[in-house]
Amino acid sequence: VSADGRAFTTGVKTTKGVVGYDLTRLLIGSEGTLAVITEATLRLTPRPEAKRTLRAIYRDVESAAEAVVRLMGQPVTPCALEFMDHRAIEMIRDYPEAAALPTDAGALLMIEVDGPAAYLEAAEAAVRAAAAGHGLLRVESASDPAEVKALWATRKALSPALRHVAPKKINEDVAVPVANIPALVRALEGLATRYGITIVNFGHAGNGNLHVNLLIDPEDPGQAEAAQGCLSEVFDQVLALEGTLSGEHGVGLEKRDYVDRELDPVALELMHRLKATFDPRGILNPGKGLPDPHPAPSPS
Amino acid sequence: VSADGRAFTTGVKTTKGVVGYDLTRLLIGSEGTLAVITEATLRLTPRPEAKRTLRAIYRDVESAAEAVVRLMGQPVTPCALEFMDHRAIEMIRDYPEAAALPTDAGALLMIEVDGPAAYLEAAEAAVRAAAAGHGLLRVESASDPAEVKALWATRKALSPALRHVAPKKINEDVAVPVANIPALVRALEGLATRYGITIVNFGHAGNGNLHVNLLIDPEDPGQAEAAQGCLSEVFDQVLALEGTLSGEHGVGLEKRDYVDRELDPVALELMHRLKATFDPRGILNPGKGLPDPHPAPSPS
Repeated sequence: VSADGRAFTTGVKTTKGVVGYDLTRLLIGSEGTLAVITEATLRLTPRPEAKRTLRAIYRDVESAAEAVVRLMGQPVTPCALEFMDHRAIEMIRDYPEAAALPTDAGALLMIEVDGPAAYLEAAEAAVRAAAAGHGLLRVESASDPAEVKALWATRKALSPALRHVAPKKINEDVAVPVANIPALVRALEGLATRYGITIVNFGHAGNGNLHVNLLIDPEDPGQAEAAQGCLSEVFDQVLALEGTLSGEHGVGLEKRDYVDRELDPVALELMHRLKATFDPRGILNPGKGLPDPHPAPSPS
Repeated sequence: VSADGRAFTTGVKTTKGVVGYDLTRLLIGSEGTLAVITEATLRLTPRPEAKRTLRAIYRDVESAAEAVVRLMGQPVTPCALEFMDHRAIEMIRDYPEAAALPTDAGALLMIEVDGPAAYLEAAEAAVRAAAAGHGLLRVESASDPAEVKALWATRKALSPALRHVAPKKINEDVAVPVANIPALVRALEGLATRYGITIVNFGHAGNGNLHVNLLIDPEDPGQAEAAQGCLSEVFDQVLALEGTLSGEHGVGLEKRDYVDRELDPVALELMHRLKATFDPRGILNPGKGLPDPHPAPSPS
């Protein structure tokens, strides 16, 4: 529904289509600031015939980060590749789901491959070969549902555990090119030490998308201030590593003042003009997603 | 480069990213009317380990069209699925590449599957099972490069043959949801008969994308007029079948006057406003892609 209250449709029901501008993809991710989406038709893909789940445990985060680069650099692309650092593992140490984790686990990866059943043995062999390397302590695999559930339990226990420890934690979702994950992990370790903040890192490493959790108590003015300084440096590091401030969560209000560090100034100006074109009265989710516009030069 | 001559970049180097509006996808397919693209960075995917090519010959186009629906409705999605109707086959009858085609071939499909080598036997079995049915005359398969080339020769011979027969043919690239291909093929047969125009249909059937070739002599005013009437009905049929006027070729000047039959009027108005926002002086590929705007109501 447009800002002036008219319902409209965009897109095609075919897998291809090049008539008109791609309003569908412009609206996706616009956080309700250009129009209101009231209905969406999704394309389905065939469900994979089979799936195999592996959990690889590493001595330290650097080893696990290097394994992510190897895993994404070979032809058998995992359908899931999740990362947990040593602090994330410590968070769930006392949960029953984590009982089986070795005491020297410094990081872990959850790796899934899917596809035709006849292919999974070769696929598992390929990801096992890529997972192997410096710092690997153990790899376990599972294919039946109960075993898979047990392996995932560690990862699933993490978010509740974090909410319990630090209900007002700052949770970012930066992403970098996969090859730069080791450098990002190193940078985050350095910032945690320098600012004296516990940072827990986990997330969708196969996309280069890490959830950076700053465990702070916002009631403590010193911690809140340190967190802002630390966060600002996290974003600068991510951008220096050719990354983005948000892989999936979006910008909203929280990150709008950092957006101009990432976006090209001309592109940002075009986005402000887009917003004004679609929503001249500024009534659609006002103030979200973009920093306040500078006075735009007249379009000559 | 923006209309006022400033270079800018859009998009991310990560596989995910939700900061700002998706200008990249807005510019893709905009036919040079919103900005000038001077550089593009593409993502590569791993090359498949192996590929198998099949050619299936059917008694008539309806049988082949039904086979397309079956092929795309099972889990082993082909990486290529090309269609040629009986008139397309007749066009290349005298070419050496088509020597092996049986005289009762009424339509043919080129089908390719790719993936890990260990999987291709099962994949070929699945597509053979889907290709089998009413009207199937013969299936051949190939995996070594020389055999594959021989199978594709028929399809590759077609475009030169068509250019030879009708240098000024009208070549459209409509697309419909795959399930509606049989209905589209029937409708095109009916229009060819009613308008007395030879229509040759071939194309990327797996996408629902058919190249509809009207073989006319534009020097003959009667034929040119019939072609315009026929083309208009082709587009109406495609839209009635939930399709799009262009799967891949784009709109340019040739199809701009048909665009408002497909696009929602509110969406079209937003596209005109987008164009005015990005290119206020109208200097970027003027007149292409969209019909002339009606005077827009003020945005209240």
